[in-house]
Amino acid sequence: MTRTELFENIKKKKSFLCVGLDSDITKIPQHLLKSEDPIFEFNKQIIDATKDYCISFKPNMAFYETQGAKGWISLEKTIQYINQTCPDVFTIADAKRGDIGNTSKMYAKAFLETLNFDSITVAPYMGEDSVKPFMEYKNKWVILLALTSNSGANDFQLTEINSPFEKGARGIDANSPFEKGARGIELYQHVLETSKSWSTPDNMMYVVGATKAEMLSEVRKIVPENFLLVPGVGAQGGSLSDVAKYGMNKQCGLLVNSSRGIIYASSSENFAEKAREEAMTLQKEMEVLLEKYL
Amino acid sequence: MTRTELFENIKKKKSFLCVGLDSDITKIPQHLLKSEDPIFEFNKQIIDATKDYCISFKPNMAFYETQGAKGWISLEKTIQYINQTCPDVFTIADAKRGDIGNTSKMYAKAFLETLNFDSITVAPYMGEDSVKPFMEYKNKWVILLALTSNSGANDFQLTEINSPFEKGARGIDANSPFEKGARGIELYQHVLETSKSWSTPDNMMYVVGATKAEMLSEVRKIVPENFLLVPGVGAQGGSLSDVAKYGMNKQCGLLVNSSRGIIYASSSENFAEKAREEAMTLQKEMEVLLEKYL
Repeated sequence: MTRTELFENIKKKKSFLCVGLDSDITKIPQHLLKSEDPIFEFNKQIIDATKDYCISFKPNMAFYETQGAKGWISLEKTIQYINQTCPDVFTIADAKRGDIGNTSKMYAKAFLETLNFDSITVAPYMGEDSVKPFMEYKNKWVILLALTSNSGANDFQLTEINSPFEKGARGIDANSPFEKGARGIELYQHVLETSKSWSTPDNMMYVVGATKAEMLSEVRKIVPENFLLVPGVGAQGGSLSDVAKYGMNKQCGLLVNSSRGIIYASSSENFAEKAREEAMTLQKEMEVLLEKYL
Repeated sequence: MTRTELFENIKKKKSFLCVGLDSDITKIPQHLLKSEDPIFEFNKQIIDATKDYCISFKPNMAFYETQGAKGWISLEKTIQYINQTCPDVFTIADAKRGDIGNTSKMYAKAFLETLNFDSITVAPYMGEDSVKPFMEYKNKWVILLALTSNSGANDFQLTEINSPFEKGARGIDANSPFEKGARGIELYQHVLETSKSWSTPDNMMYVVGATKAEMLSEVRKIVPENFLLVPGVGAQGGSLSDVAKYGMNKQCGLLVNSSRGIIYASSSENFAEKAREEAMTLQKEMEVLLEKYL
């Protein structure tokens, strides 16, 4: 999917909602456990119920891998079902992979070719050659971890670094914090600035947690055009209106994820209907914010 | 497996070799493609041929995931086969996972409980709460990425940081570079130092690439006791004798990995015999180095 297509879908659906399919066998409604593939049955009903209100689905691999080969089959069926029934929905393999180039190439093939996701989340620690193999597929995307929504983000992502960039080096934007020769740059900013030289806003997005919404304005100084995947709204405590205020750009530039708040809205037989209501409530809020800021 | 047991196995086998099972369907000998599960058949023969000369096996998940559910079944059969035929061999799930605590817990269950690996490689970018769930299993290990063997290691791992640690803070060792109040500390050193406060040398190892063997002495100033998993010997160009010189401690403290050099030593029907010879050659070199430094 191209950036233009993604923006068109946002305008059409008046939504920038991503539904996280963190489908946990111990949390899905009990009555589904009788079906042949409970996880797929759960996902199928959630997809059908929410696809009109969201523009993206994001299964997190951990919840499938924990079921072994069976979980991998549920995942395959889920992505096939999305690609068949709502091909206009942007799909994210939330995998947080990254390895030496030779090996990242295998992960890229697994997720972007075989499973045919539109995008994959990638961890930046191993640097450029660990990320690049994921960018070799046309109209597919890397979503690089920058500033995550968990407490551990403080350990390394917010560590102050001595920027190796000189004033004016590497085509740094005039309004980038790197331009000022200032110290006090944090690692996540360095990750944003460095990865810009490997990528374009047409193949790179970033994970930026909503629990630090005001930091989105710092992020926007470095990557004004890129889409940001924002987890942490809802269960993790972030505010949707702050995310839009500090993070939205002219093409929206935001995918805001909600997982537990939608998919586990009810644990009874009406779970899909309740999920639809939660997704619709968020879509309505997003519609107002899109009108306000776009 | 405990640290004492691991060291006993090293002394018994006179080896600190880890064989990387990066088993690629496009690279294994052609004649195996006729069997029902070619990847498992390949692994089985490699395991049988090399188990007397190595102390560890390390399948890299990317090579299995690229085959989908079928690949996951090959992986399950491989780890079961190792645990049944050579339970004294230390097993590493080379997965480089890491996510918010809630999700890391699912990955930990998948690899350390369901598949029953002894250890898993973990990426540090998301910090403490992303790593801790992997340490909640008795006698199981986290192997945290510190300094990797690829060129991208320069992008972030070697970035100079302003250490947040004060002199004497957090029980920093007298011979730690952090003690001297010096600047010029790099991110990988900060990862080592920070993660020490979450862990012990009985549940934490580190990945340190062999392509920078002299840097092992910098690593040893911070983590003198921890085991180090050292990739990059052989195909990636590192020297085994330099690794031993700079990295070995009183309990050996090293697992040196070789993948391609062993498993693809021959692509004909005698591949297992050739793999055995390569593993034995490395074991003989290691025997000499153990006598010299231990």
